[in-house]
Amino acid sequence: MYLRQVGLGVVALLTLAVAAAAENITSFSLDNGMDVVVIEDHRAPVVTHMVWYRIGAADEQPGKSGIAHLLEHLMFKGTENFGPGEFSRVVAANGGSENAFTSYDYTGYFQRVAADRLALMMEMESDRMRGLILSDNDVTTERDVVLEERNSRTENNPGALFSEQRMASLYLNHHYGIPIIGWKHEIKQLNRRDALEFYRKYYAPNNAVLVVAGDVDPVEVRQLAERYYGQLQPTPDLMPRHRPSEPPQISPRRLSYVDSRVSQPYIIRTYLAEERNPGDQKQAAALTILAELLGGSGISSVLGQELQLKQKIALHVSAYYDGLSLDKSGFALVVVPKEGITLQAGEDAMDAVLAEFLENGVDEDHLARLKMQVRADEIYARDNIQGIARRYGEALTSGLTIADVQAWPEILQSVTSEDVMAAARQVFDRRRSVTGWLMRSDDDEGGE
Amino acid sequence: MYLRQVGLGVVALLTLAVAAAAENITSFSLDNGMDVVVIEDHRAPVVTHMVWYRIGAADEQPGKSGIAHLLEHLMFKGTENFGPGEFSRVVAANGGSENAFTSYDYTGYFQRVAADRLALMMEMESDRMRGLILSDNDVTTERDVVLEERNSRTENNPGALFSEQRMASLYLNHHYGIPIIGWKHEIKQLNRRDALEFYRKYYAPNNAVLVVAGDVDPVEVRQLAERYYGQLQPTPDLMPRHRPSEPPQISPRRLSYVDSRVSQPYIIRTYLAEERNPGDQKQAAALTILAELLGGSGISSVLGQELQLKQKIALHVSAYYDGLSLDKSGFALVVVPKEGITLQAGEDAMDAVLAEFLENGVDEDHLARLKMQVRADEIYARDNIQGIARRYGEALTSGLTIADVQAWPEILQSVTSEDVMAAARQVFDRRRSVTGWLMRSDDDEGGE
Repeated sequence: MYLRQVGLGVVALLTLAVAAAAENITSFSLDNGMDVVVIEDHRAPVVTHMVWYRIGAADEQPGKSGIAHLLEHLMFKGTENFGPGEFSRVVAANGGSENAFTSYDYTGYFQRVAADRLALMMEMESDRMRGLILSDNDVTTERDVVLEERNSRTENNPGALFSEQRMASLYLNHHYGIPIIGWKHEIKQLNRRDALEFYRKYYAPNNAVLVVAGDVDPVEVRQLAERYYGQLQPTPDLMPRHRPSEPPQISPRRLSYVDSRVSQPYIIRTYLAEERNPGDQKQAAALTILAELLGGSGISSVLGQELQLKQKIALHVSAYYDGLSLDKSGFALVVVPKEGITLQAGEDAMDAVLAEFLENGVDEDHLARLKMQVRADEIYARDNIQGIARRYGEALTSGLTIADVQAWPEILQSVTSEDVMAAARQVFDRRRSVTGWLMRSDDDEGGE
Repeated sequence: MYLRQVGLGVVALLTLAVAAAAENITSFSLDNGMDVVVIEDHRAPVVTHMVWYRIGAADEQPGKSGIAHLLEHLMFKGTENFGPGEFSRVVAANGGSENAFTSYDYTGYFQRVAADRLALMMEMESDRMRGLILSDNDVTTERDVVLEERNSRTENNPGALFSEQRMASLYLNHHYGIPIIGWKHEIKQLNRRDALEFYRKYYAPNNAVLVVAGDVDPVEVRQLAERYYGQLQPTPDLMPRHRPSEPPQISPRRLSYVDSRVSQPYIIRTYLAEERNPGDQKQAAALTILAELLGGSGISSVLGQELQLKQKIALHVSAYYDGLSLDKSGFALVVVPKEGITLQAGEDAMDAVLAEFLENGVDEDHLARLKMQVRADEIYARDNIQGIARRYGEALTSGLTIADVQAWPEILQSVTSEDVMAAARQVFDRRRSVTGWLMRSDDDEGGE
C-alpha cells in the first residue's frame, strides 16, 4: 500500500506524525534529578512502567566485566519491604508482565500492568532503587545463574564467541570491546562488594529515567512519581559518564574463528561508525539508509541483487548499523556464501560490490522506495506503545534528548543520495574495520 | 673463549655466580612498608640510588592513559624544599647523572653519584615521594612536552604506530594493549587533578622499592633509609594490584599498516606468552631459550640459517621474548624480506621454518652453545652494577622476589630440549597471536 504513495506528501505526513507524538509526550524532572517521560495512549487501560539507568556494561571498571548484568539479576532479590522474589510474584499476581535487560549504555526494568496498578509498580521499583539487600549467598547463587546463562548463550554458540573476539578487535580502547555479559573468568570473581558498590553509586534517582506509557494522566503520574521516587536520595557528586574513546584506527584487522560446531561459515566486516549525537544525527541517518540500501531487505538490496540474484554465490547477505549508542558504533556487512564458494571468494565479491557502489552511486528509485518503507515502518511502530516507550528510554540513556527522538524520522526522510554516498565514503575505510571469517574446521581455506 | 668450555663445569661455575650475588645483597623493609635492596660493589666509590614504584601504565584508569608517564615528567617540578628543576641541578652539581622511566608495570627514578652523596639523593628523593607541588601550569606545560615526545617518537614513526595497533590487537582485555606514553587524545585531556590523584595514591613508601647499589655499607644504608624514607606516611588501604586478564583468545588476528614513510616492510607475529612468575619461572626460561634458538643471534639462529643463509629471502630475522612482566607477555617473530620478496612469501617461509622446527626438534649442539652464551652474558652482566640494580628493581616491581632473580640463571641453564619443544608447542598457537604486516604503500600486495 505505502509503495503507491511515492511522490505524495511525505513531508506533510511525517510532520503530522511528529506533531502527534509531541502532543502525547510530557516530560519533567523531579527535584532529586530523576527524569520522567510520560507517553499518553488511551486506547487500552494498560500502562508500561519503565525505569532506565544511565549505566551499562561499558561503564564497568576494568576487571569487573559483567557486574552491570549481574546486578540486573540481583535486583530481583529483595528489600526490607519486599522479600526475595516478591517483586516478580506481585507483578504476576496483578496480571502484569515484566522484563529487564542490560546493554552497553543502559540497564532497564519494565512492567506492563493494568493502568490502576501503576502506583504499586512505582512503590516496588522505587523501593528497590535504593533499598536492595544482598547477602553473599544471593550473589554467589546468582553468579552461577549468570555463568550458566553465559554457557548456554555464548560458550555453546560459535557465532557468539566469534562476535566477542571481533568486538574486542574492533575497539582498541573503548569498552564496547568487552562483552556485556562479561568475560567468563571475570564473572567468576564478582562478589557482593562489587555489586553493592556499583548499585549504590549508579542506582539513584539522579542517574535514572522513568518512562510511563499508556492510559495515564501526566498530572497524576507526576504526583505518583513525586510520592514514590521523589523521596529517594540522589548519589552526590555523580560524575558525567566518561568512557575511553578510540585512538586513530590506522590498520585494517582480520580474524578468523574456527569451530567444529559452526554450521554455516560466513564473512562479516565491521567498520567503526559515527553514532547518533544530540542535535547532530545527520551522519547517523545517512548510515541508517546506507545499511538499508546495501543489505537491509535481503535480495532487493544492492548486495542481495548482485550476490544472491545475479552471481548466485550467497545464501544470505545483510548490512547492519545501529546509531543508538552513546559512543562510536559499528557498520557491519555480512555475506554467507553458498556451499562450494570459499570465504575468500565471498569476500572478494562483497568488496567488488562495494567498489561498484562507491563508483556508481545510489539508484534514486531504490532510495525513494526505501525511504517510503522507513516512513511506513515508523508510522506502524507508533502503534506499539511499549516500543515507543523503549525508544525514549534508550535515547535518553544513550546521550540523546526527546527532541532528538522526535526529529529522527524527519532527518531520515531528508537524507539525500549525496548524503548516503558521503557517509559511505567516510565509513568504508578498511583501516577502521575488522573482517572476520567464521569457519567450520581447519581444513577450510586459510583465512587467518 | 666461553665456547671452549662446553662440557666443562657449567653448574659449578653458575653456582659460584649465584653464591657471589647472594653474598653481596642485603634486603629489608622499613616499618612503613618500603622495601629496600642493597647491593654491595666496592670496586669504585660510586653509588646508584634508585626508587622504583609498583605502578605503571597498565595500572591507569580507563581514559587516563599516559598519566603514569606524565607524572614521571612532573616529578622534576619541585617541592617545598627543592624548587622546580632543582632536583636535576643538584644531581648535576654533585657530578651525578640521573634517569627516570615509565613502563607498563613500574616507574623508576635513578641517580648515580659519588658514594658520599647518597644521603643527599635520599633526602631529595624521599622529599618528592610525598611532597610534590604541582600547579595547573606545570601540568599543561609538561603535557605539551609529552605530546611533543609522542609526536617525535610515535606519530612520526610508522613502526611505533604499527606497534601500538598490534599491541591493541594482541590484548583483548588487558591494558598492555594501551601504549605506555598514552593515546594522544587522552594525553591531551590529562590535568592536574589526574596527576595528583595518581601521585598521592601510588607514590608512597608502601608502594616503593629502594635499590642502592655500589660502594656502600648495608648498615649505613639502613640508617639513612630509615632517616629519610622511614618518616614518610604510607597510603592507607592500598589494594593489591589487580589488572583485567585475558579471556580465552580463540581467533588468530591479522593487521596491516600502510604508510608512505615505511622504509623497510616486514612481518611480525606476536603470540601471547606466559611470563616469569614467582617460584615458577620454568616456562618463561624455556621461552627465553626458544627465542634465542629461533632468532636470537641472527644468522646462527634457526630462522637465520634457513631464511638468510639458505633461502636468501630475508634481510633480517629475529625472535623476541621478555618474561619480565607482571602479566602475560608476548613472543615475537620478525622477518624482514629482501627486496622483491613479498610479505606473503616471507610469512609463508617463516611458517614453514616453524613447522619444520616443531617437527625436527632442537639441535642439541645449538642448545648447548646457546646456554653457554647465556651463561657468559650473565657473568659479564654482573660487572654492570647499575644493570644488576635495575634487574632487582624491575623484578620486585613485576611480581618477582629476590630469590626469583637469583634462581633465574640456574633455571635458564636447566632448560632441556624437551622443555623448549614443550614451550614451543604451547606458545605457537595462532589463535593467541597477531600477525602484522608493515607496508610501504597501497600498491604493495594486499595484506589486510
